[in-house]
Amino acid sequence: MRTQVAIIGAGPAGLMLGRLLDLAGVDNVILERKSADYVLGRIRAGVLEQGTVDLMDRAQVSGRLHAEGLVHHGTELSFDGDRLHIDFTDLVGRHVVVYGQTEVTRDLMEAREGQTIYEAEDVSLHDFDGKPFVTWTKDGTTHRLDCDFIAGCDGFHGVSRASVPEASLATFERVYPFGWLGILVDKPPVAHELIYAHHQRGFALCSQRSPTRSRYYVQVGAEEKVEAWSDTRFWDELRARLNPETAEALQTGPSIEKSIAPLRSFVAEPLRFGKLFLAGDAAHIVPPTGAKGLNLAMSDVAMLADAFIEYYGEHSPVGIDFYSAQALSRIWKAERFSWWMTSLMHTFPENGAFGRRIQRAEFDYLAGSRIAQQALAENYTGLPG
Amino acid sequence: MRTQVAIIGAGPAGLMLGRLLDLAGVDNVILERKSADYVLGRIRAGVLEQGTVDLMDRAQVSGRLHAEGLVHHGTELSFDGDRLHIDFTDLVGRHVVVYGQTEVTRDLMEAREGQTIYEAEDVSLHDFDGKPFVTWTKDGTTHRLDCDFIAGCDGFHGVSRASVPEASLATFERVYPFGWLGILVDKPPVAHELIYAHHQRGFALCSQRSPTRSRYYVQVGAEEKVEAWSDTRFWDELRARLNPETAEALQTGPSIEKSIAPLRSFVAEPLRFGKLFLAGDAAHIVPPTGAKGLNLAMSDVAMLADAFIEYYGEHSPVGIDFYSAQALSRIWKAERFSWWMTSLMHTFPENGAFGRRIQRAEFDYLAGSRIAQQALAENYTGLPG
Repeated sequence: MRTQVAIIGAGPAGLMLGRLLDLAGVDNVILERKSADYVLGRIRAGVLEQGTVDLMDRAQVSGRLHAEGLVHHGTELSFDGDRLHIDFTDLVGRHVVVYGQTEVTRDLMEAREGQTIYEAEDVSLHDFDGKPFVTWTKDGTTHRLDCDFIAGCDGFHGVSRASVPEASLATFERVYPFGWLGILVDKPPVAHELIYAHHQRGFALCSQRSPTRSRYYVQVGAEEKVEAWSDTRFWDELRARLNPETAEALQTGPSIEKSIAPLRSFVAEPLRFGKLFLAGDAAHIVPPTGAKGLNLAMSDVAMLADAFIEYYGEHSPVGIDFYSAQALSRIWKAERFSWWMTSLMHTFPENGAFGRRIQRAEFDYLAGSRIAQQALAENYTGLPG
Repeated sequence: MRTQVAIIGAGPAGLMLGRLLDLAGVDNVILERKSADYVLGRIRAGVLEQGTVDLMDRAQVSGRLHAEGLVHHGTELSFDGDRLHIDFTDLVGRHVVVYGQTEVTRDLMEAREGQTIYEAEDVSLHDFDGKPFVTWTKDGTTHRLDCDFIAGCDGFHGVSRASVPEASLATFERVYPFGWLGILVDKPPVAHELIYAHHQRGFALCSQRSPTRSRYYVQVGAEEKVEAWSDTRFWDELRARLNPETAEALQTGPSIEKSIAPLRSFVAEPLRFGKLFLAGDAAHIVPPTGAKGLNLAMSDVAMLADAFIEYYGEHSPVGIDFYSAQALSRIWKAERFSWWMTSLMHTFPENGAFGRRIQRAEFDYLAGSRIAQQALAENYTGLPG
């Protein structure tokens, strides 16, 4: 088999890259270790920046997004019960759209025209400094795909970054000393926008998937086990961290999913190794505060698609030569914002009483300064570039 | 002896408070442990916010400030040699004025009409929960001053805060693991504005006192001794941290003062204990990055003067009841900004490679976002309130 671009991973990044290349007539094949159903079963948040919505438009897969996505013109922050509304539209003329990552994946999967090979086991990347090819096994047979380029869109634990010699890779990481315990529940969201709550007991987030399905989170110690958290304990803890009006309005019910996710900041540099390019979670992770993960993956593959299209259309290597630096510039700004919002909204006992007052002062500065609110809003809704 | 307000400390805060009370006809006496010459010999930076300039106008002591103060419409930040100009006037319509703290003190000292008792030893504060009085010794004699109120403007190491029972005081502190090695030199400043430089070798600051006198600083380890730093070593280190053009333009010469100052963030709460009020460094310290120390002391005493004037003029305790909360709101915002600017511009090896990249991302975000620059400018030139 031969193709122009071999894409590793059929999550939203790989599928979007494939879609953009299909539309531009660049031949591509996607290899995915899991089944399509497994990929669709992954539950992830989905707060889409305008740039991501625009990309869905460009990919001609935005029909359901525009019909079902929930436009959020702002968000609420609270600090020990004091509430602050951040009005994105008023502050920076932009908004976000809540639309689950699973739905993005489904729309891209349904639109897929090129070949996707699911349940490809033992995927291996070869000779990406020379004439690259990918091998895998399926149904007991080994297959080989020769290609011009390999795009590693296979996430943090995927084979792509792992294939790069360690000496070629610089990594930057911060692991936070806590996780998010999240539950999914078939009840209407407590508010029509998201609520990010800092409380001395820890962070809480009121999020949502749809008008009838809500997602709630509480910060828990890194060592916590999900088994220790009955639904009742979760709801009690969540209520204790919200302001009284919100706690009162909360509609609870049996959880249909409950899990703990660790929080991590991670960047690998560079994003190009010969004919291999990394994009999305394969190269970087943000803590979920600030909702940047999916958006960052989407902006990576938009740049990478343009680079490939330029290469094949204009025989110019400028785009592929620039991809790593261009994407990293945006990635680090999103890493900074995600780190900042995580630092502001969570409790960090190791930072002591002074650190906590600095958090409070940051909240008070936000509450009193339109400029500070604009800075939050321009980052949350997505910086240009 | 009797007065209405006993002021402890004849630094700029105590002198400004005395001046504002004098102008309003509120009787006051200032007690100072040192001599007037000693007080004037202290070398401190002086970057005055508009609010401080306005206060000097109100105190009718701004003639020389307007004649000799250097209006700075902006400042330069640099990061590993990359330069960024922050244009305060364009960004937020405000500027700062460089005018040494020593000059502020001198102007206030010369305008002083009320009594100032210098070289008052063993100053003690008594009964500030009831009928307050202050005692001290001078020339071997013990004196007593009865008063309605005591204003503690005697700095971080002064007797005022130390007189408060520990149980009544909450303190918040961060000590930074480095200091500033500064030298004063009779050479024109290398630039007409201040330059704040982050370099992987450490922070550097190009500051100034006048068109012919410059002040330069480099970040050094907390354990460094000034004796280890010859002028030559200092200039070499400073040049290494500046961008090449600035390093080239630097005019060096023999230092006329050289010292190391530790960096500390500190706040004591509340600011009122019965009839005793704390203001300025007696209650809070900021690291010098951001130039907030003098300005914060000035805004404290402006609020405190208004509170006393309201008390005597309108027989209303509202101002004195509100002083602590009102001043602390402003103090914490300045603490936050000083901490932020310190965190951005210095090297913190303990934060690792990820932390350093976050600093770089913050600089790049600043460089690319007018809103981020406005946030810096509104804090640097002074938040309202």
